Amino acid sequence: MTNHEFYMDLAIQNAKAMKGQTDPNPLVGSVIVNENRVVGIGTHLKAGEPHAEIHALRMAGEKARGGTIYVTLEPCSHHGRTGPCAVAIRDAGLKRVVIATLDPNPVVSGNGVKILEDAGIEVIVNICEDKSRQMNEVFNKFIFQRKPFVTLKAGITLDGKIATHSLDSKWITSEEARLDVHHLRNQNMAILVGVNTVIKDDPELTARIQNGRNPIRIILDSNLRIPLHSKVVVDKHAETWIFTSQNVDVKKEERLLSYGIKVVRTNDAKQVNLKDVVEILGENLISSILIEGGGTINASFLKNGLIDKVILYLAPKLIGGKDAPTFLEGSGIDKMREAVELIDSEIIKIGNDFRLTGYPIYSNEEV
Amino acid sequence: MTNHEFYMDLAIQNAKAMKGQTDPNPLVGSVIVNENRVVGIGTHLKAGEPHAEIHALRMAGEKARGGTIYVTLEPCSHHGRTGPCAVAIRDAGLKRVVIATLDPNPVVSGNGVKILEDAGIEVIVNICEDKSRQMNEVFNKFIFQRKPFVTLKAGITLDGKIATHSLDSKWITSEEARLDVHHLRNQNMAILVGVNTVIKDDPELTARIQNGRNPIRIILDSNLRIPLHSKVVVDKHAETWIFTSQNVDVKKEERLLSYGIKVVRTNDAKQVNLKDVVEILGENLISSILIEGGGTINASFLKNGLIDKVILYLAPKLIGGKDAPTFLEGSGIDKMREAVELIDSEIIKIGNDFRLTGYPIYSNEEV
Repeated sequence: MTNHEFYMDLAIQNAKAMKGQTDPNPLVGSVIVNENRVVGIGTHLKAGEPHAEIHALRMAGEKARGGTIYVTLEPCSHHGRTGPCAVAIRDAGLKRVVIATLDPNPVVSGNGVKILEDAGIEVIVNICEDKSRQMNEVFNKFIFQRKPFVTLKAGITLDGKIATHSLDSKWITSEEARLDVHHLRNQNMAILVGVNTVIKDDPELTARIQNGRNPIRIILDSNLRIPLHSKVVVDKHAETWIFTSQNVDVKKEERLLSYGIKVVRTNDAKQVNLKDVVEILGENLISSILIEGGGTINASFLKNGLIDKVILYLAPKLIGGKDAPTFLEGSGIDKMREAVELIDSEIIKIGNDFRLTGYPIYSNEEV
Repeated sequence: MTNHEFYMDLAIQNAKAMKGQTDPNPLVGSVIVNENRVVGIGTHLKAGEPHAEIHALRMAGEKARGGTIYVTLEPCSHHGRTGPCAVAIRDAGLKRVVIATLDPNPVVSGNGVKILEDAGIEVIVNICEDKSRQMNEVFNKFIFQRKPFVTLKAGITLDGKIATHSLDSKWITSEEARLDVHHLRNQNMAILVGVNTVIKDDPELTARIQNGRNPIRIILDSNLRIPLHSKVVVDKHAETWIFTSQNVDVKKEERLLSYGIKVVRTNDAKQVNLKDVVEILGENLISSILIEGGGTINASFLKNGLIDKVILYLAPKLIGGKDAPTFLEGSGIDKMREAVELIDSEIIKIGNDFRLTGYPIYSNEEV
């Protein structure tokens, strides 16, 4: 690891720790180094508050002059809520700027670098670029597509199952893995399940960690079968939105509305239209959803090419059973060459389980 | 890592490289160090040939005197084919012996150490004990139980499946993973599949690596349905043994015998009895088998508590499908608390895939 990578890594670590609290803004971190000592660190904390560079410059004060500033995203050139950071860096007398990734928006990309270079400041780009880009995978999708970044999460046994043939599923994964899921919920703006999960398990779907942010609870319920006494209907711990079809029992809808539940009709006659769901969430500035569906909902999202990331908690256990459900049901593919591949897949150990993450690549035919 | 661990690790590395060629003897490695320099290395190569310590002593010659010998298994005290190693070490003038694991046979365990200590030699035991014990997991089972160590291997997608609903399975895993399987075959004395696999795929079941040792091919075939033109019947690349039930078509049996195939009748009237299979293999000094069955055979072995180790190649792919077969079918368990847990599970990346290994723990009720 070079010095540049070392300091950029520190900036990335700080930025990442804010995951879930900067939406709809990206995660950005910054470190200022002068004469081989860190003199300032900063990270963007919340939309509407100063950018990472501004915090770092404030901490460094006069010690910024003549130093190097590391920043995970190209300093902005626009007069937004906190003024152009490129100008602030120039005015603070930095002599070098190291950037992980240029601004992903092609309209402004490179403008910050231009302001700096025009002022005679040395600019180095693409240090730790991949790590920085991945950290903002949600933002990078949402900012251009206005659709949420969709993560599919499942806790499975090594034989791919999410329950026994008699549908017992408590517990597949260890406590550590289940805690990790609460962190995932904390990092996503919404969580999505099917109505069958609500009927069977009556879950709270909240982030049960200290100071956890609860995601909006999205329930897919084509025929408004949700029981009115369900926790997600009555507990007020977080907003609940129910997506349904055109085939709505208006009386049930009214009862739900009276509980403060949002009911959204998608375009299809009898079934929730998943593409509509994703678009409507995007229009409502929901930039990230975590799908915790059963095998049928998971398979429908996958078939529609709507899943951006897969996170699997693999418990080192075996269930067996021809009729035990796996996390991907539906009809499935016909030929192996049609299989959806995950790229950049990684595995780490969590407690006694393994957590695998990867990014599905869809062939054009399927999407 | 201490110095002791460093040298023991070298001995273990050397010993492990002989996997598959020392049967029925254990893997053993040895390193001799004098004045902080390695002066001899040795490893047991083949049953009937010298033990590891003898090779290391020969390489060291006079330089062994006053040195330390590292050996992964307690030096023997018996007059076997190569004489007691403990005596050879004593006579060579070593001043210290470092041992990874004592002899697993309680009848002789500690006897080698006693000879050494009686001669005033310092003895240190249990350095890198776990690694050494795991390296000989096959030997450690076979030597006491006279039953083969059974490894279940499967190449699966992340949703646990071994084929699409239309039974296409080429290919689930990457070339690197498939090559690794050939190494597994090379390390096992026998490979076992069901007759359906032979009928559907007509596999060779050989170790297709340079200088690979082909395992004995074991086919489970309750009603002798195996086609006479199957590669495993006609190709003579390795022995083929067919295990069947009492319900045998004698004419078909005679035809198979005429090809040099061994046909073994197990005790049950209509179905191969798996426990018989394992016992009969043990009686024939087969110390290790690799099961490459389909979901039904795998599940039967698991249900009978016959699997010692599981090796899964996880391809980062998704197939989906309620009717796509998983690697464990059968009826499966009823309640999650009955799930078979794998202990000491580990994952490494192989090519684009992951290889998970673990050891099933059976509750008493099941076995």
